[in-house]
Amino acid sequence: MNNGPLDVVGIGNAIVDVLSHAGDEFLVRESLVKGSMALIDSARAETLYDSMGPAIEVSGGSAANTIAGLASFGGKGGFVGRVRDDQLGAVFSHDLRAMGVEFDVAPASEGPPTGRCLILVTPDAQRTLNTFLGAGADLGPNDVDESLIARAQITYLEGYLWDPPAAKEAFRKASKVAHAAGRKIAFSLSDSFCVDRWRQEFVHLAEHEIDVLFANEDEIKSLYQVDSFDEALQHVRGHCEIAALTRSEKGSVIVAGDEVHIIDTEPTDAVIDTTGAGDLYAAGFLYGLCRDHDLQTCGRLGSIAASEVISHMGARPESSLAQLSQERLGETA
Amino acid sequence: MNNGPLDVVGIGNAIVDVLSHAGDEFLVRESLVKGSMALIDSARAETLYDSMGPAIEVSGGSAANTIAGLASFGGKGGFVGRVRDDQLGAVFSHDLRAMGVEFDVAPASEGPPTGRCLILVTPDAQRTLNTFLGAGADLGPNDVDESLIARAQITYLEGYLWDPPAAKEAFRKASKVAHAAGRKIAFSLSDSFCVDRWRQEFVHLAEHEIDVLFANEDEIKSLYQVDSFDEALQHVRGHCEIAALTRSEKGSVIVAGDEVHIIDTEPTDAVIDTTGAGDLYAAGFLYGLCRDHDLQTCGRLGSIAASEVISHMGARPESSLAQLSQERLGETA
Repeated sequence: MNNGPLDVVGIGNAIVDVLSHAGDEFLVRESLVKGSMALIDSARAETLYDSMGPAIEVSGGSAANTIAGLASFGGKGGFVGRVRDDQLGAVFSHDLRAMGVEFDVAPASEGPPTGRCLILVTPDAQRTLNTFLGAGADLGPNDVDESLIARAQITYLEGYLWDPPAAKEAFRKASKVAHAAGRKIAFSLSDSFCVDRWRQEFVHLAEHEIDVLFANEDEIKSLYQVDSFDEALQHVRGHCEIAALTRSEKGSVIVAGDEVHIIDTEPTDAVIDTTGAGDLYAAGFLYGLCRDHDLQTCGRLGSIAASEVISHMGARPESSLAQLSQERLGETA
Repeated sequence: MNNGPLDVVGIGNAIVDVLSHAGDEFLVRESLVKGSMALIDSARAETLYDSMGPAIEVSGGSAANTIAGLASFGGKGGFVGRVRDDQLGAVFSHDLRAMGVEFDVAPASEGPPTGRCLILVTPDAQRTLNTFLGAGADLGPNDVDESLIARAQITYLEGYLWDPPAAKEAFRKASKVAHAAGRKIAFSLSDSFCVDRWRQEFVHLAEHEIDVLFANEDEIKSLYQVDSFDEALQHVRGHCEIAALTRSEKGSVIVAGDEVHIIDTEPTDAVIDTTGAGDLYAAGFLYGLCRDHDLQTCGRLGSIAASEVISHMGARPESSLAQLSQERLGETA
């Protein structure tokens, strides 16, 4: 049954988000760096959870959020990542499959539990992430089904994959299969601390493997170790076929060869929780690419998806992005 | 450490809510009665979950929601209910304890998993509940700690307790202990179908055991099998010391001997999800009683709490009810 063409396959850490409101003083007390993602072990996950306030659980994971967003636009997506056969694993799998996403990696029957990300949302709507990779840490090349990759126009991978030991091998396999099949590889730099950990490898990837690069302002500046956005822009222009650079309330900038587009943000009633903003921007952008839209429209689709996800708690869309984009763009999308 | 005075102890089913948006046609297809609570077994829970869209998980359970609301007002609460030692049980326990609620019933190490309620939220913000009691079905009198009940001004129980086989024995024990200690028993009729299942016992309780009764319009009409709210009102007046009757957008009516108060709803920006509206009304009302407020103020505190919880997905408050009630009522509360 699952053998038709796909728009995008995502490869990433399978994570359930545990979201709680917290004041700035909580971050100080727990030595957390606002806006960043920290990797934590099982013991730290337990003590931090104990000190957190009441929470809600929503499926997350950067690339998985992007694929969920793609599905909400009406795109056909697939996902590769590892959960365990526990309750959070069932939640994660349900939420992807309920959106029509192909997700066929069998859950592990032993080893660490399904990964989770403890997220503190401060009153300024910023999110601070603390990820226990759990079962996701065992992701490796054997989880990558070659026929799945070959069926997708684009394979999208998160930079966070460089943290689990074998996952970069999964990336390399996917990249080889995709390019051999005439397909494209998209990649997100994920987080400026992640860029810090893997800068040389990421620069190499940007020059040689990545067709579509996603990064926010901090990440792209960190990648090239420059102080200004414009310097980073000049560096990245020569590297990837397309780079989509997000700048929070300043919108986004898209660079592709000689083309440069500067896209404004979309209006929102209120910014509640910025978790998933970058993931959903990528969802809209990739959906647009797969539907052969021009780059300006791809950027607007990204902005529309990001504006929806920051208007509520959690990193998955709560409204139909297909409907929202039709309202905003008319028949264009 | 846990031996100081308490405002309210809740006894109820320990449930994690699984909330998903659904259209009216989904309810028709799945033969669900909008606005009601249906008990489902493990197999039905699985097939219904499979057909549901992506969801968020938030701690729930009617009496537990009320105790969480009480804690948000700044009240001291305790809870009695049964979870298993699984991931959803950990979520449920965390969310109560993180609000400062005493919850000391040890999780079961075998038997069915932690209970869950599959909730479909339709575009009219109505919620339709499908409860798999799971570990909660084993709640019994041995779970009721006599000293806990004696420490609380009010013990609050949900009508849903009549569904698990041994839980009504837990109610009877708690009622006996509370009244022997000069404390009060509050009770919610929970759901009109629940009233249908247990009408004679509930009428008996209202006449002989319950000091403070909570019911919505459908439930109180069902209890007395009458067609109009006013007829139900006349019946209940002679039965309980205090009855607080909620009427959705028409507000609430409070009856206590000769006193009758008609309380309007509080303004809300938007009604997103009515899950927990009754539970949170009870939270505000009981908090007011414990702080010796007059019945009008108790009703307004109930309305304030209900207005907060219907403004977002999930049945637990997302904002501080202490702060919200101070803004709305000034120094009164």
